[in-house]
Amino acid sequence: MPTILITGFAPFNQEAINPSWEVVKQFEGRQFGNTHQIQIAQLACEFGHAIKQLHALLDLHQPEIAICIGQAGGRADISIERIAINIDDARIPDNAGAQPIDETIVVGGPAAYFSSLPLKALLKNLRDNSIPANISQTAGTYVCNHVFYGLMHYANTHPNLKRAGFVHIPYLPSQACHHPGAASMSMETLEKALSLLVETTVKVNPSSDLPIKLSAGTIC
Amino acid sequence: MPTILITGFAPFNQEAINPSWEVVKQFEGRQFGNTHQIQIAQLACEFGHAIKQLHALLDLHQPEIAICIGQAGGRADISIERIAINIDDARIPDNAGAQPIDETIVVGGPAAYFSSLPLKALLKNLRDNSIPANISQTAGTYVCNHVFYGLMHYANTHPNLKRAGFVHIPYLPSQACHHPGAASMSMETLEKALSLLVETTVKVNPSSDLPIKLSAGTIC
Amino acid sequence: MPTILITGFAPFNQEAINPSWEVVKQFEGRQFGNTHQIQIAQLACEFGHAIKQLHALLDLHQPEIAICIGQAGGRADISIERIAINIDDARIPDNAGAQPIDETIVVGGPAAYFSSLPLKALLKNLRDNSIPANISQTAGTYVCNHVFYGLMHYANTHPNLKRAGFVHIPYLPSQACHHPGAASMSMETLEKALSLLVETTVKVNPSSDLPIKLSAGTIC
Amino acid sequence: MPTILITGFAPFNQEAINPSWEVVKQFEGRQFGNTHQIQIAQLACEFGHAIKQLHALLDLHQPEIAICIGQAGGRADISIERIAINIDDARIPDNAGAQPIDETIVVGGPAAYFSSLPLKALLKNLRDNSIPANISQTAGTYVCNHVFYGLMHYANTHPNLKRAGFVHIPYLPSQACHHPGAASMSMETLEKALSLLVETTVKVNPSSDLPIKLSAGTIC
Repeated sequence: MPTILITGFAPFNQEAINPSWEVVKQFEGRQFGNTHQIQIAQLACEFGHAIKQLHALLDLHQPEIAICIGQAGGRADISIERIAINIDDARIPDNAGAQPIDETIVVGGPAAYFSSLPLKALLKNLRDNSIPANISQTAGTYVCNHVFYGLMHYANTHPNLKRAGFVHIPYLPSQACHHPGAASMSMETLEKALSLLVETTVKVNPSSDLPIKLSAGTIC
Repeated sequence: MPTILITGFAPFNQEAINPSWEVVKQFEGRQFGNTHQIQIAQLACEFGHAIKQLHALLDLHQPEIAICIGQAGGRADISIERIAINIDDARIPDNAGAQPIDETIVVGGPAAYFSSLPLKALLKNLRDNSIPANISQTAGTYVCNHVFYGLMHYANTHPNLKRAGFVHIPYLPSQACHHPGAASMSMETLEKALSLLVETTVKVNPSSDLPIKLSAGTIC
Repeated sequence: MPTILITGFAPFNQEAINPSWEVVKQFEGRQFGNTHQIQIAQLACEFGHAIKQLHALLDLHQPEIAICIGQAGGRADISIERIAINIDDARIPDNAGAQPIDETIVVGGPAAYFSSLPLKALLKNLRDNSIPANISQTAGTYVCNHVFYGLMHYANTHPNLKRAGFVHIPYLPSQACHHPGAASMSMETLEKALSLLVETTVKVNPSSDLPIKLSAGTIC
Repeated sequence: MPTILITGFAPFNQEAINPSWEVVKQFEGRQFGNTHQIQIAQLACEFGHAIKQLHALLDLHQPEIAICIGQAGGRADISIERIAINIDDARIPDNAGAQPIDETIVVGGPAAYFSSLPLKALLKNLRDNSIPANISQTAGTYVCNHVFYGLMHYANTHPNLKRAGFVHIPYLPSQACHHPGAASMSMETLEKALSLLVETTVKVNPSSDLPIKLSAGTIC
């Protein structure tokens, strides 16, 4: 039975929890239909180490699909990332105290990789199910983008990993209580969103399905 | 058994639903403890008419507590309004096509009324229960503020209406799907929030409880 | 020759300058036409003390018009305040270390006073001169609103002060350099804006001019 | 004398002007020191055609440096773009009515190119001169990013074009008057900013200068 790897992150930036891990851990041991089994893992919020953890998980589980989830404090939508870029530029230190500035993630690697998730099908199915969602053109330059780039660089040389990508999610309401004015999303909505992300990714056939022409770009 | 009146609004501004009514209608026929019964009603999103509807409801039910709920599209928090101002300035027409600009709501009325809800106790209890909340210094100049002013003007001459005020709530997720980037709040969270608003208002004794010194102001 | 009093504030909240004072001090000794002379002053960013300073200036200069200017860090427009409310709720301590929470400014005073500046004429003339401007429904609950309320309370019992109000202005560009993403406005634009505010206030006749029906309200 | 090519765009999205062209046209015929001459041009806001125009200009003028400027309506800072991505996803039609969705700009081209401007030196010098500035991780997916990608793709095979990149600028104040709440920047500030961008790019030696370690990343 093919495997779907889903990762969340450890808390960072003085948060007690990370919503990505809070939702991902709900999926431990789940199956989708009788066709795919799910493996979950928590990644450290640490440059370098997080990619090593991820690559070890990919080597171990040999997933067909891998979706990394991260916290986007302040964003209101499920935020499906389009592209990972080959640079670290940390506004704050990571959980191990490292703060790389303008450092290349993979020396000699390409400037960026596009997600191989079916972005617009994900977007459409989330919205069709009343879950606020959008495509994001930047996953930032912190550990989330770092892991996303590491994931896609691995996928580039491992064709058995057919679909891989990154999704940012809002704060949980309990976190937003400490950030007046910041958007949040309930655990029920997040769990439904993650189920839909996995289901849709499994269903869309990369070689035969027509792409969905749904505009989700930005002017700048 | 004393009555609590809770109102929501009809949809406006091309929305199919109004989250205020969606959550208020869940409370039809409820009691709080064995001490208070709840009456609910939907108000029209129409200048003038909405206040007439509200005053008729207040005359009919003679509530001890009245809480009007409205939609604040784009706000992320449960937004407890501090003050109603004596002016209409409509950016868009109301549901009857009226668009008053700089018109006084009650000629000869004071410039503003403060809410008589226990604002900071409400704020604290919402946050203590993991519900994002804030105090708002403006309810706008549209039908929501209009009704809020009409409510407080009535309370000013009807001392049996001990507690009255207005609370704005975010879009529901299904609405935010049509407003990428806009915050939303799930029905479960909204319902829990409204329960806490009512419970806390009932419990706090206006004549004996010490005010809660919790800063929730803005610099500008 | 009748007097126009214009005040700015001392810097606060760790800023080196306050744009309100930077622009107001440009107007020292100016006249408007041969009809009005200008007096300027800097107010302390301190609850209580600032109103005492302002009232002493009003007693001394007996102005016909008084316009207080304050910094609205983060706002993008010239922000013409509509209403002052009778409450202090300080998110941060003032320059003397005081942080009042939910304290009445004038015990026994009304909940609020409307500005007596010709709001919509000001708005229209600023925009007609290519200066981004808006009406604001809240001056906050900090020292700016505090002074604004103190100003209007004085005007209420001093009919010779025919026009009085408060205007918030954005950061200067040099300040915004320390707040990435925050809007700013150049000194040239601010100076032109303040000239227009004064000129327009002088020209509009409160007893004969028709109000300008320009919508500038908010839904919430 | 080596050439610096600076381009702006035609107005789009119902604007009467484009601030990029308004500022760029001020630089017609200028020299920097006695070392570099400037060529300016306006590009159409049209997918495909704009890149053709740009490539013709690059072939004609053989510049050593090329900086394309575009409007970022709503952004508050001079926004130095870090990376161009190989995708068009248009939220609105361009000036010729085309609205590509998820189309590759250069088939077979890499997913992205990094700017070859000295990003952090530009950022530092702008801020040191009191001009609000930031690094942006996304130039969007509209004609600006399209041209930026076309520029960097050309640079990739034309080593004589030593420095190339894209900078987004805010609305002019006259435009922001029609977008209440939107940030703007004055022509004086924009012109000073563009001078500094050119000067700094000329001065920083790509082969010998140490990179400036100034964090300007985002978490997401």
